[in-house]
Order: sequence, then structure tokens, then C-alpha cells
Amino acid sequence: MSARKLHLNLFVYPGGHHEAAWRYHGTDPSRILDIGFYQDLARRAEQATLDAVFFADGPSLADNVRYASRFRLEPFTWLSAIAAATERIGLIATASTTYTEPYNLARLFASLDHLSRGRAGWNIVTTGAPQAAGNFGLDAHPVHAERYDRAREFVEVVTQLWDSWEDEALVVDQKSGLFADTDRIHEINHTGRHLKVRGPLNLPRSPQGRPVYVQAGSSQDGRSFAAAHAEAVFTAHQTLRSGQEFYADLKARATALGRNPDQVLVLPGISPFIGSTEAEARALHEEFNDLTQPEYSLQLLHRLLGLRLSADELDGPVDRRLIETGGERGNGSRFQLVLDIIDREQPTVRQLLHRLAGARGHRVVTGTPEQVADQIQEWFEQGAADGFNIMPPWLPGGFDLFADQVVPILQARGLFRTTYDGTTLREHYGLPRPTAVPTSTKEYA
Amino acid sequence: MSARKLHLNLFVYPGGHHEAAWRYHGTDPSRILDIGFYQDLARRAEQATLDAVFFADGPSLADNVRYASRFRLEPFTWLSAIAAATERIGLIATASTTYTEPYNLARLFASLDHLSRGRAGWNIVTTGAPQAAGNFGLDAHPVHAERYDRAREFVEVVTQLWDSWEDEALVVDQKSGLFADTDRIHEINHTGRHLKVRGPLNLPRSPQGRPVYVQAGSSQDGRSFAAAHAEAVFTAHQTLRSGQEFYADLKARATALGRNPDQVLVLPGISPFIGSTEAEARALHEEFNDLTQPEYSLQLLHRLLGLRLSADELDGPVDRRLIETGGERGNGSRFQLVLDIIDREQPTVRQLLHRLAGARGHRVVTGTPEQVADQIQEWFEQGAADGFNIMPPWLPGGFDLFADQVVPILQARGLFRTTYDGTTLREHYGLPRPTAVPTSTKEYA
Repeated sequence: MSARKLHLNLFVYPGGHHEAAWRYHGTDPSRILDIGFYQDLARRAEQATLDAVFFADGPSLADNVRYASRFRLEPFTWLSAIAAATERIGLIATASTTYTEPYNLARLFASLDHLSRGRAGWNIVTTGAPQAAGNFGLDAHPVHAERYDRAREFVEVVTQLWDSWEDEALVVDQKSGLFADTDRIHEINHTGRHLKVRGPLNLPRSPQGRPVYVQAGSSQDGRSFAAAHAEAVFTAHQTLRSGQEFYADLKARATALGRNPDQVLVLPGISPFIGSTEAEARALHEEFNDLTQPEYSLQLLHRLLGLRLSADELDGPVDRRLIETGGERGNGSRFQLVLDIIDREQPTVRQLLHRLAGARGHRVVTGTPEQVADQIQEWFEQGAADGFNIMPPWLPGGFDLFADQVVPILQARGLFRTTYDGTTLREHYGLPRPTAVPTSTKEYA
Repeated sequence: MSARKLHLNLFVYPGGHHEAAWRYHGTDPSRILDIGFYQDLARRAEQATLDAVFFADGPSLADNVRYASRFRLEPFTWLSAIAAATERIGLIATASTTYTEPYNLARLFASLDHLSRGRAGWNIVTTGAPQAAGNFGLDAHPVHAERYDRAREFVEVVTQLWDSWEDEALVVDQKSGLFADTDRIHEINHTGRHLKVRGPLNLPRSPQGRPVYVQAGSSQDGRSFAAAHAEAVFTAHQTLRSGQEFYADLKARATALGRNPDQVLVLPGISPFIGSTEAEARALHEEFNDLTQPEYSLQLLHRLLGLRLSADELDGPVDRRLIETGGERGNGSRFQLVLDIIDREQPTVRQLLHRLAGARGHRVVTGTPEQVADQIQEWFEQGAADGFNIMPPWLPGGFDLFADQVVPILQARGLFRTTYDGTTLREHYGLPRPTAVPTSTKEYA
């Protein structure tokens, strides 16, 4: 029995993670906008004692919805309704530092943390989709480095806002008439390069003090950012070796900044196709690949790599020389990951499209429940992961198989909890509750 | 029996609407941040077949929380969790056009409407609190007229975003592989004085098409705006005559713009102190007034009127000459309402403070259930109201009295529904579901 425990999140996506999930006969596409469907899913994840459910996000319609369920479920409203249907499971919302106001975002997270009694997590992202700029009054999309510069300042500001009410500020003494001790509520008076915010926040400090800080993005800028701020990191790796390299690098960077590396959890994505035999699992995966539509995937490839290919080139090799390696695109970690697949596997175009169809570059595993559990255990014990972001190919069935068949194996091996010890996401993740650090001596009056 | 029916909302406020509500022995202040408390309240309102629950909002800590529960519950998260605990009741969120991005706000409302199956309403406000500017990078607060100019453009933009997916755009044909008909999804390509937004929205059109458009603010700018855009109007009036003047004016303005005046509901605020006798009701009101703290109310008076008074002037008259009538403050309708109280009632400072303590300038009625029902019926039948925003002095008890004792009287008189006929807020309010009006011929691809 290992003392160290796995952490497992359910990454929720309309229909499921495979791009053709919505076409699979086991998927009920009539429920992809039904909150009850997602509440049920979160309850099942809670029954399986998962750490959290996780919602991606982006403020634009970035992919082509002609062929795939690539609209966006707005995370705050959706997770608040899920909070009302669950008791313990963490609730992680992706939110952009590029296209939101820190005061508005700080309120949404503090409120989600209040109403869920301490279960909120923030997946901190910069918005990479160029389409988003046009939705926010900009002609051009801010470049990668500039977005990260704003992100750093943004995190500083919202942290100060979450700390602007000390925990003891809310008094509520009916007799004396003191509702809040305003000596313990502070303006933050932040003036920086990108932001200017006075504060204080307009509601009391939340159960976790601050939501759990999550980060996804494994570029150099992303790693620096994660090492400085993140308490959990979502990342995409195709091979154990790549996972190990990232894990070691991130823990070393965090340690160098004086942080406890155990408080920076590394959680790669994994998309499991599960069968009662290995052959059955592979056949299931093939069934999904047969439902893909090249029109969609070729557009995705163009967006990712700058490659313009047509449907009659599907069975030829990927011509490495046509890939645009320069410019903004080359800064993203997902770009490098796809290049590595091409170099390592020398796939045909169709094989590459199928490779990416499963989970947009995240690792797809096919096998029996034992084989999937083995893969998880290997990465966990070989220094590549503290846990995983589970990305079921389709929902809810693809998650049910994992919850019913893989989780019990991980529990029997002593790798995963069988009951929740705590009530907050910080407790599930083994993270401390931060005390408020007021950044200004100027009190609110 | 009247064919025309009353509309009743429950206006939810932490603790209750009386500024001393949280100090009253019937209030449990330990639950003011407990979502379960508000879910229970909404369920009670739904049992009483009210049209909606309503949340105010503002992106700053505007009033002094030293003496009163004047923090802010963030409406989208709170109402989403309430949606999960209810089936029929409408959910109206106040949101500012001054300090939000239209793309983000359009998503939040569309999502609330999806997850509540068509129960969302938007109380459209401009942010008047000068403290807010500092939370959004501004040195000075935008002036009244400028805020309304942005508000008009903002409403136009979010309407286009809500219409950017036609109702038929979501196809989800598993067989053919057509998820969405992108010929029916449109960029909006808005470029105006304040905003520039490309669109389309990143999720399908919601059950109501658009949330119900609500407006609160009875200044001249506010009335013009309401006549053009609002489907329900919240307003504050102390006298029947003032209510009638506003009602007639607003319906005439809407008619002049070619709108059906029956589709602009006028809903004044009313805060009822209910007793089994009139004397009991008055004694209850006095009990609340005795719990007020002049330090708080005097600050409020300064903010509203520019009057700086000290605690030893409480029993003297209000000196009308000290009130600052010029400038920005004089443009607000609440300012004029307080001046009218002073002119009409010639109160002492303390009397004026008590007058405002009940519901910040909204009408307070004290009496037996029959007397409160009579007041409601009078305004409803005498051309001053299509219904009311109920503002209980304290929660939940102050609402329970209304729901248990006044609502049945209104139902027995045939003035109020006994069951819901519809499932959406538009149906409760007797409003049509708008069809999408795409504003651009450029399709999304």
C-alpha cells in the first residue's frame, strides 16, 4: 500500500472528448444541453470519490460546430447548478485572464466557493484562440508572451481581492450592531502595467480563502507560470518519458522558487477506451475513428500546424516540410506535441487525424480495466503524474466504465481513496488553506 | 374576477430589506451566505406561485458593511444553484452594462436560461456607485448620460449575440454527421461608439430565445430606455399618484415607440410589515426602526443627498437648503423621491432615516394581511401597477407572512394565479418568445 494517493478529475465535455462522440450510438445527443445530464455525471463521479469535475472554456466559437459538439458550456453557471446537486466533489472552472475583468472574475469564484462550501478551483488560462479577440473589441490577438504577462498580474490582483476581507472580518454581532469589522477589510489599490483595481471585494472571504489554482499549458511561459502559481497542473503527454521530463522540470522549477513541490500536483490527461478484452477495446476505438469526419479534422490540423490538406491526401504521409514552425503558433506546447507524434510514428494523414480525434492531443489508452489501471499506476509510480484528468471518449458511458471497472482496481491496489476524508477541494488535493495576506494598510470605510 | 392578473416577484436581499433586518431576533444571520437558505426561500416563493425571484447587484462594496449586511451575492452563481432547486419560478439577475463585457454577459444569461429551461430575466442597469469605477481601472465614474448611451448599445449587441444562432441551427443528426447548420449561425460584426464585437455566441439559442428584459431606474434617461427595451420595469413610488404618473408615462412612451404597452409590465417595490392587527404591524415596524444605527443611515443620507449631518441633529428638522441639488446626483430618480418625502412630510432627520431604513426609498406598508392586499389591489386597479416586487423587511419570516397570509387573499379575489400555466418566465409574464433576427448575412464558418 502506497501512502501517496492518486488524484483523479473528470474532465467534462459536451458529448465526450472524442470528436465523434456525439455520433456514437451510446451517446444521447438530445441531452448535451440538459443540466440534469451533467448533474447526474457529477454525482457518479462523486460516488467514485473523484477529486473534482473540470470544465474547459473559451470565449469564442473556435472550432467548427458543423461537424462536432464544439460549443461551450459556461462554467460558472453550470458548476453552480452542479454544486447544488453534489456534496463533496471539487468544481474546477476554466476562466481566461485575457478577456475578463479581475473584479468580476474574483466575485464569480468567491461565490462558487461559498455556495459549494469550499469546492471551487480555477483553471487559469490565457486565451489562445484568435477568434476571441474579435469578440472583445480587438483587431489583433495579443501575443503569447504579452498574454502571460497580463496573466501574472491578473493572478496577483484576484489573489489580493480574495484576501481583501480577512477571515475575521465578518462579525455579525446582532447585539452590538457590528456586522463587519471594517478594520479587517482592505482596499488593494493595485496599479500595474495591465490592470488598475481598488477593491475591496464586495463579499466576505470564502471557505477555501482562495479557489485552488490550476493551470494548463506546458509551453516555457506556461511552465514558469505554473511553477510560480499553480497548485495543480493539467498537461498533455503521449509518452511516459515526456511525462517524466515535464514532471521533474515542473517540480524543480517550483522548488527553486521556494515552494513545496508536493503542493504542485501534476495531472496529465488520459482518455481511456475500455473493453473486456484488449481486442474489444481496440475495436471500440476503431468504431469511434470510423465516425470521424475528415472535413473537421483537416480544419483542426490547419489551425494547429498551419497544414492545408485535402480529403484526397488522407492516405499519404504527413509532409513535415509543409508545417509552419515559426511565429506565434510554434510557442504552444500542443504544437510541439503533435510534431513529436509525426516524428516518432511517421503516420499517414488519416492516422494522425485519428490520433488527435480522441482527445485533441491528450493520451488515449485502450485496454482492459486492468491494463488501464496498470498504465495509471506506472505513470504515478514512475515520476510522471500525481494523478490524472480523466477524459472519457463519450459520456456518460465512457465514464461509467472507468468508474465502475477501473476505479475499484485502483482502490484495491491502495492507490486511490475509497471515501472522502475532507469536504473541500483543497483537502482532497492535500493543499493548505491560505491565510489572507492583506496587501494594503488602507482600510475600507 | 379580473381577467388581468397581478405579477409578483420576491426581491431577495441578504438578511432582508430593512437595514437592521440582520439584527432582528427572527433573522438567523448565520445563514446569510448559505445557499440552502436562498434555495428554501425560492422554493417557498414557488409554492406561492410567484413569477420570479430577483437579485440586485453592483460591482463594488458601495455601502458601509460595518453596520448592515450590504455585501453582494453574485447573481449568476447564486441563481444557477437556485435553478437547480426549483422548477418553475423565474430567475432575474441584475447585471451592469457599465462594467461587463457583452460577450461574457451574453454567455452567462444564455447559460442560465438553458439550465433553468427558460426562466432567466436580466435586470439591465448602469452602475451608479462611484466606488465601482476604481474596481475597473477608471479614475472617474462615467456620467449618467454616457452610461445610458453605452447601455443602449450594449443591449443591441447582446440581443444580436442571443440571436446569432437561429433556433434551427442546432441539428444534431448522428447519421449524416451534421451537428449544427452553420448557415444559420451568424457573426454579428458590430462596431459602435462603445463596443466592437464579432460573434457569434459560442452556444445554441436558449429556451426563451432571450432572457426577459427588465429595467430599474426611473430617471428621464431610465424611462426612455425602459420604453424602448424593457419588458418589465421595477420602480419606487411612495404615493399612488406618483405611481400612476409613472405608469401612464411609461405606457405612453412605449406606445409611441410602436410597442404593445401590455408587454411593458410596471412593478413597483413594496415592503410589507404584516400583523394580525394594524397596531401589531406598526409595533413590528417600530421594533425594526429601534434596531437601526444612525451612523449607517447618516452616511446613506450623505450619499443620497449630499447632506452631512451628525448624530445630535437627529431630532431637528431636515434643512432643505443644505441639500446639493446640482450635478450628477440630481439626475437620479431616487434623489427626487427623497426630496418629495421631505417636502410632503416635513420629517425630522430621525423620521426621514426611519422612512428610508425600510427599503431604501421603496414604499413600506404596515397593516393586516387584508390591508396589505387592499393596497396591492388599489394600485393594480387604479393604474399604478401591473404587479409588485415584494421586498420583505426580513427573511425568511417577512416573506412567509406575505406568502401564507396575503397571497391567498389575492388568489381568493381572483387577482393572482393559483397554479403556473407555463414553464418559462416569459409565459408567467405573458410575454412572447422572440424569434431570432440575424443582423448580418455573414455566416460563421
